Amino acid sequence: MIHPTAIVSPKAKLGKNVQVGAFTMIFDNVEIGDDSIIGNYCEIGIATPLAEGKALVIGKNAVIRSHSCFYEGSTFGDKLVTGHRVTVREKTIAGANLQIGTLGDIQGHCEIGNYVRFHSNVHIGQKSKVGNFVWIFPYTVLTNDPHPPSTVLIGCEIQDFAAVATMTVVLPGVIVGKHSLVGAHSLVVKDVEPHTVVGGNPAKFICPTSKIKLKDGTGRNAYPWPSHFTRGYPPGILDNFEL
Amino acid sequence: MIHPTAIVSPKAKLGKNVQVGAFTMIFDNVEIGDDSIIGNYCEIGIATPLAEGKALVIGKNAVIRSHSCFYEGSTFGDKLVTGHRVTVREKTIAGANLQIGTLGDIQGHCEIGNYVRFHSNVHIGQKSKVGNFVWIFPYTVLTNDPHPPSTVLIGCEIQDFAAVATMTVVLPGVIVGKHSLVGAHSLVVKDVEPHTVVGGNPAKFICPTSKIKLKDGTGRNAYPWPSHFTRGYPPGILDNFEL
Amino acid sequence: MIHPTAIVSPKAKLGKNVQVGAFTMIFDNVEIGDDSIIGNYCEIGIATPLAEGKALVIGKNAVIRSHSCFYEGSTFGDKLVTGHRVTVREKTIAGANLQIGTLGDIQGHCEIGNYVRFHSNVHIGQKSKVGNFVWIFPYTVLTNDPHPPSTVLIGCEIQDFAAVATMTVVLPGVIVGKHSLVGAHSLVVKDVEPHTVVGGNPAKFICPTSKIKLKDGTGRNAYPWPSHFTRGYPPGILDNFEL
Repeated sequence: MIHPTAIVSPKAKLGKNVQVGAFTMIFDNVEIGDDSIIGNYCEIGIATPLAEGKALVIGKNAVIRSHSCFYEGSTFGDKLVTGHRVTVREKTIAGANLQIGTLGDIQGHCEIGNYVRFHSNVHIGQKSKVGNFVWIFPYTVLTNDPHPPSTVLIGCEIQDFAAVATMTVVLPGVIVGKHSLVGAHSLVVKDVEPHTVVGGNPAKFICPTSKIKLKDGTGRNAYPWPSHFTRGYPPGILDNFEL
Repeated sequence: MIHPTAIVSPKAKLGKNVQVGAFTMIFDNVEIGDDSIIGNYCEIGIATPLAEGKALVIGKNAVIRSHSCFYEGSTFGDKLVTGHRVTVREKTIAGANLQIGTLGDIQGHCEIGNYVRFHSNVHIGQKSKVGNFVWIFPYTVLTNDPHPPSTVLIGCEIQDFAAVATMTVVLPGVIVGKHSLVGAHSLVVKDVEPHTVVGGNPAKFICPTSKIKLKDGTGRNAYPWPSHFTRGYPPGILDNFEL
Repeated sequence: MIHPTAIVSPKAKLGKNVQVGAFTMIFDNVEIGDDSIIGNYCEIGIATPLAEGKALVIGKNAVIRSHSCFYEGSTFGDKLVTGHRVTVREKTIAGANLQIGTLGDIQGHCEIGNYVRFHSNVHIGQKSKVGNFVWIFPYTVLTNDPHPPSTVLIGCEIQDFAAVATMTVVLPGVIVGKHSLVGAHSLVVKDVEPHTVVGGNPAKFICPTSKIKLKDGTGRNAYPWPSHFTRGYPPGILDNFEL
């Protein structure tokens, strides 16, 4: 279960049936839940004084793919799944069923809900708040410094079921509302109303999400997306998405 | 030839004179052509049910640089060259002489022609079609989902000799025509005519490519680029570029 | 000090008290200063004919985090600090106290001053010139080819104390002036005057930096930033920032 080339601290607390890949290092201050799989070339529980002694806690049934780096001091619910070369810093608190795509960079001190999906290469700045069932697409950055460089960090907030498309920047303190859609390559400079589509640089109101129809020949509404997209979600979990 | 720390499956089919770097893992379902070099810390042939049993096939004279991850089920012609930390998923079919820069992320199910050059940190979404002699520059993303998240994937197409400059997003289904140039930091929302320059957010027609002159003091046309840029191409290969 | 799994060339010149992490490779043509720490899974001093035999020289007190790749032929002053998975190519000359964030890609042939801070995932193209005390934020690209692809490389220049915010592209040859601020998600197509704020696609003049006030309740000016932001700088080093 533990590859002979892996280096696992005897202080680390591994649950039952945890697999550890080749050349992977598990450091001291780590708790990993049962039935988790840690890929090759990972560093799990990198020490940092910024964690103030808190452990890295990873829930059950996690899959962490190769070359990923997790620091001490963050907590993940069950069924965390990552791509390759993910970085997660200290003091992030995430719910269950989080997916972080390849090259994702979670800077720490974030709050992340349940069933959130970050596609490849997203950058989640410190103090970001991400709700439940949120989707963030590649090369999107959630920022936090209103006048860089400074020590004033104002995280942004992405609310439940919102989707932020590729190569978007969300400016500090902005709230992206529930069930909204931010179009690709946008700079979001002010709050996005729930159930609306915005886009552009700077992002402007385009239409209510109800105007967007599925390009699958059915003519059905594309949003709220749980009305048609349920892949990978457990049965019933999306039943109350309109609340 | 095979570093003593490498872990190579006895089932993998390695050609003559293949070099395998330190701490690299070659899995079962892999064929690598003669005279190829696999760098350090690579994972070659990562198993996935999505490959449906197909092998990862890499042609002759490949150079794959360190920390790269290739899944089962994709096929590459001869002389593949990659930078560091490249990710390639399943079921992509690529021609010969492909270059993938550092941090490139090829999501799988793509068709890629011959002599294509992806610079660092490009993201090629599933179902993308890329012609021959195409150039794609850093932080460019080829998307595929017209209303994310959904199961409707409509790849975009980049035709022969086109160049897509840095930090551009191409929206789903868009065709970027032959010998065209997409300016940096563009959002391409509709088809790009051959031999034209577009740019901006959203990208608009700027001029025919024939208006762009080389900044090398000669005043010659910069496009079609094979008229002046031939570095790394075998003699004669670009002779018929205007066809 | 040198992890038993590390592979260190006997030709490499390591100073006193240098730590080398697990599974890391130090190649022949390398000089590392005293009291430096090289993380796990790094490749330090990758050979390339493009370095023309020049060594990789890293000053004292460096911290290079895991999975990073440095080529031969570049030189760094003391107190270099990097994040994870950094790539540095040949023939870059950098001053002291450089910070390169996670996933940074320094393409080589660059000149970089003292106390420069690159945040995560910046791409510094060949021939870039970066002054002293410069800040460059995530997903920013400094370009160099005015009509890609070509062999005409015209680097851009970022002058002392300038800050370039997230997801910005600076076009070839552009000069970003002292103490200026480039807003997030900008395409910088022409020179930026000192002490001004620009932004947008294409970037336009917004206001003098003196108009930007700190959002910390004090109402003080946010720029020049050394008037309020000094974290991590040695005492006195910023005293003459207005010169």
